[in-house]
Amino acid sequence: MTKKKFTSSYVGFIDLKYKPNLRKEFIVTYRVQPAKSEKFTTVAQAIAGESSIGTWTHLETLSPAVKNKLQPHIFKVDQKRKFIKIAYPLALAELGNLPQLLSFLGGNIFSMKIVDKLRLEDIEFPKKYIDSFPGPHHGIKGIRKILKVKQRALVGSIIKPKVGLSPSQTARVAYDTWRGGVDIIKDDENLTSMSFNNFKKRVKIILKTKGKVEKETGEKKVFVFNITGPADLAFERAKYVKKQGGKVIMVDIVAMGFSAVQFIRKQNLGLIMHGHRAGHSMFTKLTDQGMSMLVLAKLSRLAGIDQLHTGTVVGKMEGTAHEVDTINDFLKEDAGEIDYLKSDWSNIKPTMPIASGGLHPYLAESLIKILGTDLIINFGGGIHGHPDGSYAGAVAARNAVEGASIGAPLKKYARNRPELKKAIEYWQDVKN
Amino acid sequence: MTKKKFTSSYVGFIDLKYKPNLRKEFIVTYRVQPAKSEKFTTVAQAIAGESSIGTWTHLETLSPAVKNKLQPHIFKVDQKRKFIKIAYPLALAELGNLPQLLSFLGGNIFSMKIVDKLRLEDIEFPKKYIDSFPGPHHGIKGIRKILKVKQRALVGSIIKPKVGLSPSQTARVAYDTWRGGVDIIKDDENLTSMSFNNFKKRVKIILKTKGKVEKETGEKKVFVFNITGPADLAFERAKYVKKQGGKVIMVDIVAMGFSAVQFIRKQNLGLIMHGHRAGHSMFTKLTDQGMSMLVLAKLSRLAGIDQLHTGTVVGKMEGTAHEVDTINDFLKEDAGEIDYLKSDWSNIKPTMPIASGGLHPYLAESLIKILGTDLIINFGGGIHGHPDGSYAGAVAARNAVEGASIGAPLKKYARNRPELKKAIEYWQDVKN
Repeated sequence: MTKKKFTSSYVGFIDLKYKPNLRKEFIVTYRVQPAKSEKFTTVAQAIAGESSIGTWTHLETLSPAVKNKLQPHIFKVDQKRKFIKIAYPLALAELGNLPQLLSFLGGNIFSMKIVDKLRLEDIEFPKKYIDSFPGPHHGIKGIRKILKVKQRALVGSIIKPKVGLSPSQTARVAYDTWRGGVDIIKDDENLTSMSFNNFKKRVKIILKTKGKVEKETGEKKVFVFNITGPADLAFERAKYVKKQGGKVIMVDIVAMGFSAVQFIRKQNLGLIMHGHRAGHSMFTKLTDQGMSMLVLAKLSRLAGIDQLHTGTVVGKMEGTAHEVDTINDFLKEDAGEIDYLKSDWSNIKPTMPIASGGLHPYLAESLIKILGTDLIINFGGGIHGHPDGSYAGAVAARNAVEGASIGAPLKKYARNRPELKKAIEYWQDVKN
Repeated sequence: MTKKKFTSSYVGFIDLKYKPNLRKEFIVTYRVQPAKSEKFTTVAQAIAGESSIGTWTHLETLSPAVKNKLQPHIFKVDQKRKFIKIAYPLALAELGNLPQLLSFLGGNIFSMKIVDKLRLEDIEFPKKYIDSFPGPHHGIKGIRKILKVKQRALVGSIIKPKVGLSPSQTARVAYDTWRGGVDIIKDDENLTSMSFNNFKKRVKIILKTKGKVEKETGEKKVFVFNITGPADLAFERAKYVKKQGGKVIMVDIVAMGFSAVQFIRKQNLGLIMHGHRAGHSMFTKLTDQGMSMLVLAKLSRLAGIDQLHTGTVVGKMEGTAHEVDTINDFLKEDAGEIDYLKSDWSNIKPTMPIASGGLHPYLAESLIKILGTDLIINFGGGIHGHPDGSYAGAVAARNAVEGASIGAPLKKYARNRPELKKAIEYWQDVKN
C-alpha cells in the first residue's frame, strides 16, 4: 500500500483581490476568535469550507467542477478586529427557505473546535434571494392605515401581570388601557392558552371589548394575540383570531423558529404579524458569540414580520443606542440604495420597530429622540404600575408619546396633564 | 397628590425551606452571573419574577390570589457556584407547547440588564407535562427493528461534499457507501432542494438505489432525507418521502424551531425523525451563557426526535466526554427512576444518540468505549475521504464499528481487513 499524505479540504478559499457580486452572491461578515494555537487564516478557511463544500479531510468525491461552481471566497481578512467577509454563491441556498439559510450560514461552523468564539454579524442578500420571500403583509404604512394614526409613535401596552388573569379580568384591564389612549395591547409572551386563561375565550371577550372602546373613543384599536405554539395549533389560533375579527397575531420568532413563522405568513391570512423575540439574547447578547440582532431582524423582515421588538436603549433590556438604531434604520428602510455591497430590499415592505421592556411614560422623550416616531412604544409595568391604575397609566403614556412625538419637553408638557405628571414624579429616577 | 414610593415586584421569591414537588412543578436550574454591582439574590429574584408573575415595578393589577397560585419558589441559592434552582407551578406552562415553554423558561430573562450572563442548565418536568407530548414514534428499539441490527452500534454516513452533487451522483456515492456496509446515509444539513439537486429527484433515485443495494447485500438500509424548511414545505417533503417508501426524515431542530418539529411529529406519518442540530453552539457552546445541550436534548425527546446528534467527544466538534455521556444517558433512559427531584419519562420512548462530525474509522474504538453501542456513528469525510474512495471507506467504517462493538482492539482487528488497515494508517494521527 502506498501511504497517501493526509490533507484538509479547508484550503484555497482566501482571495483578497476577489470582487464580490451581490447579484449572485451572499456577502457574509463573521467575527472570529480562533482557538488557542490556531492561525486566523486557517480558521477563516475552515469556516468558509465547513459552511459550503469543504470538510476536515481531502475528499475523493469533490470534483473541480463542483469546486469551481460553489466555492466561497474570503475577500476580507481583518485579523486585528477579528472580522472576515465571505462571498458565497447563491446556489448554496434554497430560495425562500430560511431554516436552510441558518443551517448553511449559522450552522456547524459554530461547533468547530478550532473556533473559540464566532459571531454571525451581518448578511447582505442577493436580490433574487430577497425576492423569493413575501416580506410583511402590511408593513409600517399598513399598520398606520389600520390604526388611522399618521405621524406620532404608536402607544402599546402589555397586559400585566404577565400571567394569572382570567379572560374577563384581561378584558377589564384592556378596557381601561385602551380607553386611556393606548393603540395596541398585547398578550405577554408567556401567555398562550392556559388553565386560567383559555385562548379562544380571551379572543372573544377582548374583541368584544375592543369594539366597545372603539365606539366610545372614536379611535381604532388592536389587540395582539399570542399564537406561539406548534405550527398547526398556531395556525388554528391565527384563523380563529381572523374569524373573530382580530387584526394582529404575535409569534415568538426564536421560540417558534422561522420554519413556522414562514408557514404562518404563507397562509396569507392578511393579519399583522407581531414579532416577539423571547430568548434571542441567549445568542445575540454577547458581542463575540452567536448572531447579531441585526441578522435576526433581516430574517424576520424576509419572513414577513410586520412589527418587531428590537430594543429600548433606555429600558430594562439590553441594547445600545447605536445597535438599536442601526437595526431600526434597516427595518424602516423603504427602498434599497443602489450599492454593489448593499442588498436591494425595494420589493419587501418595511417592518415597524417596537421598543418594549421596562419603559415608563417619561422615557418616551429620550426614546423618540433616539429612535424617531416610526416606532411602537410598549409600556407594561409603566402603565399598569401607575399609582392610580391602568387607565391613568394609559393616559400618561399616550400624553407622553404625543408630546414626545412633536418634540415637546415632557416635564413642561405634563404641567396640566395630571396623570403624566404623577407618572413622571413616581418613576422619573427609574432608569432600569 | 400623595407621592407613592416606587417598589419593584421582583421580591419575595426566595424560600430555602421550600420543598419542590415534581408532581405539580417544574424544577429549573440556572447558572447566573449578575451584572456588576447587582446582588446575587436580587438577580435571582428578578429571574424568577420576570419568567412568571413579576415585572420591574409594583403592579396594581397583581392580586394576592394570583400571586399565591402562580408564584415561583427559589429553593436553592449557591452563590459560590453561581447556581439557583427554582420551582415553577405547572400552571405557568401550556401542556404540549414547547415554544411556550421556551418563552417562559428561556425568554426575556436572558435580556435583562441586571444579568451579565445566564444559562438554562436543566429542567425537570412534571409527569403531566411530559405525558402531554408524543415523544419519538420509533425510539431506539424501533430503529433497530427497521434495520434488523440487534447489538452493534449503527454505521452512518453523510454524503460528501456537503453540496454540489446531482441526484444521480449522490445515488452513486450512496450505492458504494451502502454496499460497503453502512446502515444509514444522510443528506448534509446544507442540502435541501437545490438548483443542482432537486429534492424529489433525489428521493426517487436514492430509494431506487436503496432497493437495489438491499437485494444485493441482504441487509436493510435507510436514507435520511433533509426536509428542513418552512413547515408547509417540510411536511410536503415528508409526505413525499413516505409515499416513495422512505423511512427517515431529517429536521434541523434549531434552524427550524420546535414549533415546526412538533407539527411534523403530530402528523403521525410513522417516519423516523432524525434530529440534526446545526447552530446549537450559538447558545450551547459557552458554559455560562444560553442553554445546555442537555435541555435541548430533553426538548427534542419530548417533541419526538428518534435519533439526535449529541456530540462526538473525539471529533471535530465541541463536546466533552462527561457532557455527551450525560446527554446520551438521559436520551437512552428507558424508565424513569422514582425520585421526587427527577422526572418520570416512562411513557416516552428513548432517543438514539448520534455521534457525527470529524470522525474516521479508527475513532470508533474510543467512541464506543466512552458512549456504548446504542449509538449511531456517522462518518462523512471519514468514509468519502478514504484513499480508495467511498466503498473502501464504508467497508473500513463497518469493520471498525463491528470490531469496536465487540470490544476488539482495532489495530489488531484491522490486520486482515485491508480497507480498515489503510484508513487507520491514513488517519490515525488525526484527532480533529
